[in-house]
Amino acid sequence: MTLTVDLNADMGESFGPWKMGNDAALLEVITSANIACGFHAGDPDVMMATMMAAVQNGVGIGAHPGFHDLQGFGRYRMNIPAATLANQVRYQVGAAQAMARAAGGQVRHLKLHGALANMAAEDEGLAKACYEAALSVAPDIIIMTLAATAQQRAAEALNCAWVGEIFADRAYNDDATLVDRSLPGAVIHDAALAGPRIAQMVQEGAIITESGKRIPTKIDTICLHGDTPEAVDIAQSTRAALEAAGVTVRAFGT
Amino acid sequence: MTLTVDLNADMGESFGPWKMGNDAALLEVITSANIACGFHAGDPDVMMATMMAAVQNGVGIGAHPGFHDLQGFGRYRMNIPAATLANQVRYQVGAAQAMARAAGGQVRHLKLHGALANMAAEDEGLAKACYEAALSVAPDIIIMTLAATAQQRAAEALNCAWVGEIFADRAYNDDATLVDRSLPGAVIHDAALAGPRIAQMVQEGAIITESGKRIPTKIDTICLHGDTPEAVDIAQSTRAALEAAGVTVRAFGT
Amino acid sequence: MTLTVDLNADMGESFGPWKMGNDAALLEVITSANIACGFHAGDPDVMMATMMAAVQNGVGIGAHPGFHDLQGFGRYRMNIPAATLANQVRYQVGAAQAMARAAGGQVRHLKLHGALANMAAEDEGLAKACYEAALSVAPDIIIMTLAATAQQRAAEALNCAWVGEIFADRAYNDDATLVDRSLPGAVIHDAALAGPRIAQMVQEGAIITESGKRIPTKIDTICLHGDTPEAVDIAQSTRAALEAAGVTVRAFGT
Amino acid sequence: MTLTVDLNADMGESFGPWKMGNDAALLEVITSANIACGFHAGDPDVMMATMMAAVQNGVGIGAHPGFHDLQGFGRYRMNIPAATLANQVRYQVGAAQAMARAAGGQVRHLKLHGALANMAAEDEGLAKACYEAALSVAPDIIIMTLAATAQQRAAEALNCAWVGEIFADRAYNDDATLVDRSLPGAVIHDAALAGPRIAQMVQEGAIITESGKRIPTKIDTICLHGDTPEAVDIAQSTRAALEAAGVTVRAFGT
Repeated sequence: MTLTVDLNADMGESFGPWKMGNDAALLEVITSANIACGFHAGDPDVMMATMMAAVQNGVGIGAHPGFHDLQGFGRYRMNIPAATLANQVRYQVGAAQAMARAAGGQVRHLKLHGALANMAAEDEGLAKACYEAALSVAPDIIIMTLAATAQQRAAEALNCAWVGEIFADRAYNDDATLVDRSLPGAVIHDAALAGPRIAQMVQEGAIITESGKRIPTKIDTICLHGDTPEAVDIAQSTRAALEAAGVTVRAFGT
Repeated sequence: MTLTVDLNADMGESFGPWKMGNDAALLEVITSANIACGFHAGDPDVMMATMMAAVQNGVGIGAHPGFHDLQGFGRYRMNIPAATLANQVRYQVGAAQAMARAAGGQVRHLKLHGALANMAAEDEGLAKACYEAALSVAPDIIIMTLAATAQQRAAEALNCAWVGEIFADRAYNDDATLVDRSLPGAVIHDAALAGPRIAQMVQEGAIITESGKRIPTKIDTICLHGDTPEAVDIAQSTRAALEAAGVTVRAFGT
Repeated sequence: MTLTVDLNADMGESFGPWKMGNDAALLEVITSANIACGFHAGDPDVMMATMMAAVQNGVGIGAHPGFHDLQGFGRYRMNIPAATLANQVRYQVGAAQAMARAAGGQVRHLKLHGALANMAAEDEGLAKACYEAALSVAPDIIIMTLAATAQQRAAEALNCAWVGEIFADRAYNDDATLVDRSLPGAVIHDAALAGPRIAQMVQEGAIITESGKRIPTKIDTICLHGDTPEAVDIAQSTRAALEAAGVTVRAFGT
Repeated sequence: MTLTVDLNADMGESFGPWKMGNDAALLEVITSANIACGFHAGDPDVMMATMMAAVQNGVGIGAHPGFHDLQGFGRYRMNIPAATLANQVRYQVGAAQAMARAAGGQVRHLKLHGALANMAAEDEGLAKACYEAALSVAPDIIIMTLAATAQQRAAEALNCAWVGEIFADRAYNDDATLVDRSLPGAVIHDAALAGPRIAQMVQEGAIITESGKRIPTKIDTICLHGDTPEAVDIAQSTRAALEAAGVTVRAFGT
């Protein structure tokens, strides 16, 4: 049996006159695009152009909702009631569906953004509220969860379609949390290291922590970052390393 | 054969802590609700609550997109490229669809708001761009057009499903435009006058202008205003006058 | 020696087409207005009109900055870096100064709004960052602090001009915190009770807690709420009770 | 007597996570910075950083207000009442003053942005409303006007301090309007051409049109663009050409 894995990255994070990321180059490497929905980044023009590019590249389209905070790029935690967050997720998912349809595609997955994702990784109730909201709008949507977090537990509890995600460029603690960014080695900037490391995790079906511990994990997709100078390099080397290790890179659900 | 007509009003125009209109009372009188989509009014919570109330009252749900200008309530003209406006319409229609679905209903019509509606009533190309955008997202959506304007001509040219709308409380010039608000008699504040006048237009199938001229017009729906003190009174008396004149008030397309 | 106290209320909380509160009536009762600066409420038109009304009524003008969250009315906590919050306070204070100047007045005090105020009442460092930011823009500004909280300690540490504030309609715990809103008796809705109770606190120079404990406190101003149906009643009865008890109601610093 | 001229450019047009322009390099060439005020670009953090950089480089600080349209970058015309625009100008000027003060500097000039500037160049009444608004907040502010337009006539009618501005990289028609961007030669991309051409206009005290006609004009400042790839090159070559022609580059009013 062949091992397969999906590669995902955030996309469509430009806004108005401001550009971010190298979406065109990344779309040639990844198999799933998490497209910003206008609350933390993206605007209707950017969304439409990104949806069309994803369709052209045969890349799976994801709604990527975040907090309604453009200046903060959705990176700051907001203590908003779950019912309000649920409606904000519905709104953003609906907007993404409209754009996908107009572009000749469709939204197939959901991934939460930034601080909202971080909060949902710690708070199963919040994660469930967001996922149920998305499912109320799009019953067949596949939930992309941070592996081994409250996000995954929420998706399991909802008994919905979900996939598990790990990071290509972040080190893990022994409890499956990420090593704090302020610590040395927390972020892997070297494309030559990131690729083989992630290939090994996929082959072993486990998160390999900094200390070498194995945490058995359903790994369906690898998160690549799109907004750093070395982003495209790391994406390409990760894909090459996976393929060299005999892992097929393919969109999940296909 | 029985004459029928639809009654529509704008709804869901509250925002955050601020309330506007008496949606609960109007929903008992009207048959179509034009629900703001968050750009000129409404927020995801308001949209969701309004969609649920519309479903409960059996009132047809409309997406009511406007310019992205909350302070100006979408009332000021903006000189935005048609392609950008089209994407803004797509975005708002998609958000409305999501909320309607989560509320157990569905978006069945589109009506443009405020300055965007005024511009589309004068500019067939702009109207077509907006309508095509909505249709690219929701192929079965029914376009609500201001009768005898460029809006109607655009819908006819697109050969899509559309309905024609006249105002319950506005006087008409002989060229089917509205009498300028600054002139006496332009707005009809008296509920006892508004109802019989509109019943007569529906029965004659014509706009009756201030001078008494008849302009044959497809009249499918009557626009009631929701944000004035006398709004509910005028709505009720218009409905009563129509029924007294033997006109059945019923949602279009039903 | 005559006892004096100031009465303050939040003002200018309308936005675009949406009205909030009865500013005109309250301006005849209060001596200090905390005017929203456009981030959580208020827009440039509302600010200008409110500043002019405050000048006409001889009411002291305060800048009332909050989080940049219109839908949430600044009521939800946001985990924003202190340096960014400081710049947001500077921005809002500057905007308020401009409007006050154009209205023939000037900003004389600062009061934080909503969740930002709550966070500053618990976190002396955050309070200092906000107050230093305001002072960097307006060196003579008087800081209005919630009495006996981290806000007051921050102002004391900065050695700046400050006044202490208590609530007209909220019950206090023995540690000077407010009784949780979910508990019975936490909010005093009865104007006949609120007035005499606050007059006694001013006369004794102490917060009187629910249990009857006295916490000696510098009480310079009483916070009245402007956005409830009984707001004007409570404001008038509080003022009448203070005057009946021989306390002069006068703007601080005059 | 020595000829002097000022060089100005728009600055502080980044927003949140999005960067625009090369402000650091331009600040070494120009003598006046027009700093965005948060409505069409800029946020409080960007404003503060830009103000500090301007102070460090000894560059004159200008408030650069625009329409409240971040997605459109203030480039689309909005049909907003003059009184509302006036309050929006006051608000933005006040915010700029606050940031300048906190950065150890002060706002010395005003320049309108984008579509608002274009509209004011055609409509003397609109220009006056904006300028009077700025003067009501900052009585000593110097108005930067597009030479030989309704902007200049408005400033003359107000009898306020003003300076006249021409473009370094745009061709002029014989009526002093700009050659339409869609026509060949409308925009001068060649740094080797732009510099000597502008030096000649300053020396002759006249706009030199495409046809060679001279329109005597008060030329106080040259507008350089900051957001194109060749921006810094054209800025440096314009400055070098002016100095080579014996024109001293110096901030106006100094």
